[in-house]
Amino acid sequence: MPDAGTLCRDLGRIRETAPVVHNITNYVVMNTTANALLAVGASPVMAHAPEEVGEMVGLAGALVVNIGTLSAQWVASMREAIRAAAGTGTPWVLDPVGAGATRLRTATALSLIEESPPSVVRGNPSEILALQGAANATRGVDSVHASDAALASAQALAASLGCVVSVSGEVDLVTDGATLVRVSNGHPLMPRVTGLGCTASALTGAFLAVNPSALEAASDAMAVMGIAGEMAMEQAHGPGTLQLYFLDALHAMTDEDVAQRVRMEVV
Amino acid sequence: MPDAGTLCRDLGRIRETAPVVHNITNYVVMNTTANALLAVGASPVMAHAPEEVGEMVGLAGALVVNIGTLSAQWVASMREAIRAAAGTGTPWVLDPVGAGATRLRTATALSLIEESPPSVVRGNPSEILALQGAANATRGVDSVHASDAALASAQALAASLGCVVSVSGEVDLVTDGATLVRVSNGHPLMPRVTGLGCTASALTGAFLAVNPSALEAASDAMAVMGIAGEMAMEQAHGPGTLQLYFLDALHAMTDEDVAQRVRMEVV
Amino acid sequence: MPDAGTLCRDLGRIRETAPVVHNITNYVVMNTTANALLAVGASPVMAHAPEEVGEMVGLAGALVVNIGTLSAQWVASMREAIRAAAGTGTPWVLDPVGAGATRLRTATALSLIEESPPSVVRGNPSEILALQGAANATRGVDSVHASDAALASAQALAASLGCVVSVSGEVDLVTDGATLVRVSNGHPLMPRVTGLGCTASALTGAFLAVNPSALEAASDAMAVMGIAGEMAMEQAHGPGTLQLYFLDALHAMTDEDVAQRVRMEVV
Repeated sequence: MPDAGTLCRDLGRIRETAPVVHNITNYVVMNTTANALLAVGASPVMAHAPEEVGEMVGLAGALVVNIGTLSAQWVASMREAIRAAAGTGTPWVLDPVGAGATRLRTATALSLIEESPPSVVRGNPSEILALQGAANATRGVDSVHASDAALASAQALAASLGCVVSVSGEVDLVTDGATLVRVSNGHPLMPRVTGLGCTASALTGAFLAVNPSALEAASDAMAVMGIAGEMAMEQAHGPGTLQLYFLDALHAMTDEDVAQRVRMEVV
Repeated sequence: MPDAGTLCRDLGRIRETAPVVHNITNYVVMNTTANALLAVGASPVMAHAPEEVGEMVGLAGALVVNIGTLSAQWVASMREAIRAAAGTGTPWVLDPVGAGATRLRTATALSLIEESPPSVVRGNPSEILALQGAANATRGVDSVHASDAALASAQALAASLGCVVSVSGEVDLVTDGATLVRVSNGHPLMPRVTGLGCTASALTGAFLAVNPSALEAASDAMAVMGIAGEMAMEQAHGPGTLQLYFLDALHAMTDEDVAQRVRMEVV
Repeated sequence: MPDAGTLCRDLGRIRETAPVVHNITNYVVMNTTANALLAVGASPVMAHAPEEVGEMVGLAGALVVNIGTLSAQWVASMREAIRAAAGTGTPWVLDPVGAGATRLRTATALSLIEESPPSVVRGNPSEILALQGAANATRGVDSVHASDAALASAQALAASLGCVVSVSGEVDLVTDGATLVRVSNGHPLMPRVTGLGCTASALTGAFLAVNPSALEAASDAMAVMGIAGEMAMEQAHGPGTLQLYFLDALHAMTDEDVAQRVRMEVV
């Protein structure tokens, strides 16, 4: 079960083994995602050419697929990479950015899931509601719902896909359909930095690369995000400086920081 | 007419209503543009797939089109989005990055304008000169002219297109062909941060989403840019830290900051 | 021969003449690369459309080609740009990101070199080993070798291509096959910031634009990188803040900073 001990152990494993995390992600966050993975101790790689994604998945401990700035050619590569991951048993994470905002995004997210179920779907409440069929759930790419509004949808989605669903919000919810983990770390300024949700998905990939329990890996990632955000806000004065101190905190985080701050509850 | 009162009112509206601003922009600035929009209170979305741009425009309060790293497929999507904006009456902003540097850029900017006139063209002096037919105006994407050199071109372009032209420089010029607004805020280090011009275009979109007067919206954006730059330079020590404190300042800016600092003159 | 005097002179030339550096680079680093070029005094431009790369090369003092997020269409543009550079005698730099990790990357890097030999190949040790035919050299895009392990490969590659090879690492190695320059500046946290290698390649382009000696230009770039990293670490507390202070340092670096800190040895 997810707890501070699991988190510290997994963080230590990432730092020791520097797992390669293969990202097929959106243009907006490629830089910040790569930096967050490096700061936590992983080795990020970004590759989307159909000629190489299969081979790159073979080098990686996890695959992260994010549809934030999708186009037809990129979706074809995502499919190819997911098939490769299914072949090698590599865990993969789906970040369905903007699902519900346009039909293309909802349909793409659902069709990638059909290709082979992900280990973790990590989204904001509006996106999870949209994937579960709720109408008019999303406006753009920022959530218009609190995470609790998506709880039933998250549990249903997890149960039907046989995967873990991780919903970010003031309280993050991580569930495999049966167990529910509530992570209450974080800071209200975090949604004012673009792509921190995408970072959460990337870190979920890093933890999956060192821990086969998707429930624990997804919970680890959300707790590390929140703790780093809290540590960052002791230095930051706004959303600009928050970004940088967040990376500093990911890199500096000790077992003591985790033990003192983590607020993770298994329900 | 643009003044501190208009600016404060419009800034308040953005923060209250968080308008969705749809960007089809260049790879260099996607992250920083999204962060600036979030910092000012708007909700950025980046989407370029032809299958979804029409639908995404329908969710947005404004569309921002930036040709900084253009390619044929992206230009097709820009066209599609502009047509959708024309259909729904959504205001749109053109940032003609590098117009004049290559024939492709000049021709693309002019052809997008022909698709449907933008509410605002926001460029540097060299780009505005190039769009108005001046030869050899541009060298790369950084301006080689002061804004005053582009004044006549800006006024002629605004008059001929029936739109507002916003020229960034040591003194920013905003004109609808008749009225001229001069904004003297800012700091000389700002051009040493990549993409602050693109940020100005994105913020112009955010202000257009809450104020139908393109002259006021464009002036608001240039003043907010300049004021945030001045506030940032009280903390920053170079172009790196400037970027972050700039975002902090956009987020923290109060009506008092605006009142004390704004230097906007209607001619 | 490369030394502090050459470096200060070349840095001064960049700041005076602001050479245009044309980058065809990866999505992850476009923003940070542009910012580093601006901070050092150059004028970056990013352009990849086949319709304009030839014309853009004509405006540039140097071309930098980086295969970090390659795809077939982009490689075609890279070829086109390299041919244009060969035609105008414009120096070009190859950054073979991830060569060795996938067959596509190795083959692409080698085929770009065949198009027309670059002035400088700038890579990490694993990439240089891979280009020189060493098996299993690369794991993802982060090096798994120290620079000395690549010394023989770097010298052989430089000799066979008639170009300079620049290998980043704890000690940077720059060689034309005969002379070897060892640059010992830098800080161990630098590899925890994504894309600083790509920045080194971009700065190599800036120095090539003002100094036709590829050995001096490549050495200048590595020394400036390392010195800026050291200066930054006097302020930074982790990989996040390092990024920003690094840009501040590039901008603020004086001849005195160079003289006091540079550790460049010609062997």
